[in-house]
Amino acid sequence: MKPINVGLLGIGTVGGGTFNVLKRNEEEITRRAGRPIRITTVADKNLELARSVTGGGVKLTDDAFAVVADPEIDIVVELIGGYGVAKDLVLKAIDNGKHVVTANKALLAVHGNEIFAAAQKKGVMVAFEAAVAGGIPIIKALREGLTANRIQWLAGIINGTTNFILSEMRDKGLPFAEVLKEAQALGYAEADPTFDIEGVDAAHKATIMSAMAFGIPMQFDKAYIEGITKLESADITYAEQLGYRIKLLGISRKRDNGVELRVHPTLIPEKRLIANVEGAMNAVLVQGDAVGATLYYGKGAGAEPTASAVIADLVDVTRLHTADPEHRVPHLAFQPDQVQDIAVLPIEEVLTSYYLRMRVEDKPGVLADITRILADSDISIDAMIQKEPAEGEAQTDIIMLTHQTVEKNANAAIARIEALPVVCGKVTRLRLENLQ
Amino acid sequence: MKPINVGLLGIGTVGGGTFNVLKRNEEEITRRAGRPIRITTVADKNLELARSVTGGGVKLTDDAFAVVADPEIDIVVELIGGYGVAKDLVLKAIDNGKHVVTANKALLAVHGNEIFAAAQKKGVMVAFEAAVAGGIPIIKALREGLTANRIQWLAGIINGTTNFILSEMRDKGLPFAEVLKEAQALGYAEADPTFDIEGVDAAHKATIMSAMAFGIPMQFDKAYIEGITKLESADITYAEQLGYRIKLLGISRKRDNGVELRVHPTLIPEKRLIANVEGAMNAVLVQGDAVGATLYYGKGAGAEPTASAVIADLVDVTRLHTADPEHRVPHLAFQPDQVQDIAVLPIEEVLTSYYLRMRVEDKPGVLADITRILADSDISIDAMIQKEPAEGEAQTDIIMLTHQTVEKNANAAIARIEALPVVCGKVTRLRLENLQ
Repeated sequence: MKPINVGLLGIGTVGGGTFNVLKRNEEEITRRAGRPIRITTVADKNLELARSVTGGGVKLTDDAFAVVADPEIDIVVELIGGYGVAKDLVLKAIDNGKHVVTANKALLAVHGNEIFAAAQKKGVMVAFEAAVAGGIPIIKALREGLTANRIQWLAGIINGTTNFILSEMRDKGLPFAEVLKEAQALGYAEADPTFDIEGVDAAHKATIMSAMAFGIPMQFDKAYIEGITKLESADITYAEQLGYRIKLLGISRKRDNGVELRVHPTLIPEKRLIANVEGAMNAVLVQGDAVGATLYYGKGAGAEPTASAVIADLVDVTRLHTADPEHRVPHLAFQPDQVQDIAVLPIEEVLTSYYLRMRVEDKPGVLADITRILADSDISIDAMIQKEPAEGEAQTDIIMLTHQTVEKNANAAIARIEALPVVCGKVTRLRLENLQ
Repeated sequence: MKPINVGLLGIGTVGGGTFNVLKRNEEEITRRAGRPIRITTVADKNLELARSVTGGGVKLTDDAFAVVADPEIDIVVELIGGYGVAKDLVLKAIDNGKHVVTANKALLAVHGNEIFAAAQKKGVMVAFEAAVAGGIPIIKALREGLTANRIQWLAGIINGTTNFILSEMRDKGLPFAEVLKEAQALGYAEADPTFDIEGVDAAHKATIMSAMAFGIPMQFDKAYIEGITKLESADITYAEQLGYRIKLLGISRKRDNGVELRVHPTLIPEKRLIANVEGAMNAVLVQGDAVGATLYYGKGAGAEPTASAVIADLVDVTRLHTADPEHRVPHLAFQPDQVQDIAVLPIEEVLTSYYLRMRVEDKPGVLADITRILADSDISIDAMIQKEPAEGEAQTDIIMLTHQTVEKNANAAIARIEALPVVCGKVTRLRLENLQ
């Protein structure tokens, strides 16, 4: 059968990986797809790089707009990233009736509603398995594998950089700043790591998964985002003593009054499989009403793992491109006219459990005062550590784990605790999820 | 849009679950599939049961052959099981131009080649996500999610009964027979548990995954199958002391000279995520050349988890049934004319590591004799435990872990060790996989 012609925009890490894997496994991929999938054109500002990666044999250009307008191209693979020119290129490609494969989570989380609407109108596919959790086929699982279910919640370790940092902090007992430097030296963190360590990247991915799980529009601007930069080693240690690990989770949960969408460091019981996902690995846990919990684990970044997802999308698009659009798998798992306008809840309305660490005067009645405040707020205590004060010190740490409560209720109780004269400074507060 | 009409054959555990989930989540499923999916007819020998589960509103019959011949039915769901009447019904349904969804791993592992050829000829789909690992979308991952990769190997905990028994044996230090009774009382093992504990069920599933991973025909008759009935608690304990867990794995690996396909108790490093899959849960680890290792975890059995997979298939078939057959996802991941006749290797040719436990006289030179035999056979020792003999005893246990070697080489070395006068009785031998 006639080959499918692919135009590749961007030949950086993932672009290079895609080119190489497609070439190396050409025979195997054709055996699956039923026809050859060929990158015929590569666009990159750096023609030198494009030449050295491709080794010739394909058309090279520094004009990506020429590629999305090229009538010979069937599928455009966008691997430029960001919201700027990438958005224009994707919309132009769609407008020209081309199918699009992209790994651009930022673009989809922020402009996905516009992009999918345009694709719907033109009857083309926009595939984005590589946008979430690299090579793990989590988009496919959410969109096709779990269609029987009402998804109840999902929680994912979807940023390798931060998981690497948290694993190292726990393993070696080192503070955040030091481990960040190590991660940068090892190439696990970028020179400007802000998007990763502040949780923005994870929030992009959680936004995409949330839309697909619940049939709602992308609402990245409503996501609550808290990174790991303020996490202290002491809390990792205390969490461990209580049988918990701290992971940066992207969480989305369907509630009666809306959808939770949040990224923050989270205590999870060490017995959960996902608590044992270490280093730069990713994993997503999905809870469906019929299937129960399923977990998907693998490499969330890197040239070839991400290429694996890009190429899986190319095969899917190749297989489906002759199907009538209304019988294709819908972009966001639900039929476009079936997307429901359910709002993302503000963080104050989120229902979660808490880890509280407070510095207190070592005096009688302190614990009674604190527990009284929690009881008055209907917050039950699940576990507690009270440390002996260190030799010669008059202050000590109390650590408490609470049962679930709405965040505004927790906030009010914490404010009252901080106002107690025997409590020194701020209460350190982390969220805790049992994931059951 | 006009509903898709489904005929359900068999309203036992999974049939009942499928009926209930489809009804409960009707709205959500229709929002995804784009049209209603309706069970219009149920066939079961037990009409009483069918009536009580469905509560009326659907046609009931005890004649399944009437359902597969009914022109009103678009998709037949076969949940009867076994090779007998189920095979006739599936082939008849295909012959009548109906798409088929089945959870019947035994049927596919043994008669899959014939069934898929018939489906190919008629241009209908046979979907079977529920046949392997229950609600985990592993078939979809292998067939669609990992299409970029040359799959190198896969290894799965794909039988919940045996994983429950092994978890309990380790946790409680109890022997197999006792835990089996407990599993039967709890409903985790059937009254006749042969298929589960002897590894046959796992081999059915491994056969199906192997065919999909490597683009080869089903070769169940070539699978090596060893269950857990002879596993001793002592070996679970020794394995643990060496940092390993014992799991019943279904393993398939592509080698230069063929494909390995085997089910047996296997030591795996306790640090691997899959080593920590406990109780009746399932997990499959897949190694691809681009993506690296990915893992899929969830419930491998039960009414609603299995129904989740059956219904996902129904949605897939509903979405794809208007596509031209040659652009559909091929049944076995590879295009039918691209299936390669690669043979399954006999167990003697398998490449693996070993755990060896032997009872020896506590005399000088014993260890030298044994290690000399292994060295002569080019088998390296990776770790060893030599126990002090118990008070007043003249014999003791030696436990060794070896590096990889071909099984026939290991067999020859073990025979020579057993022939040593200082070695008492048979050497206990288990296989070990590092899964890396």
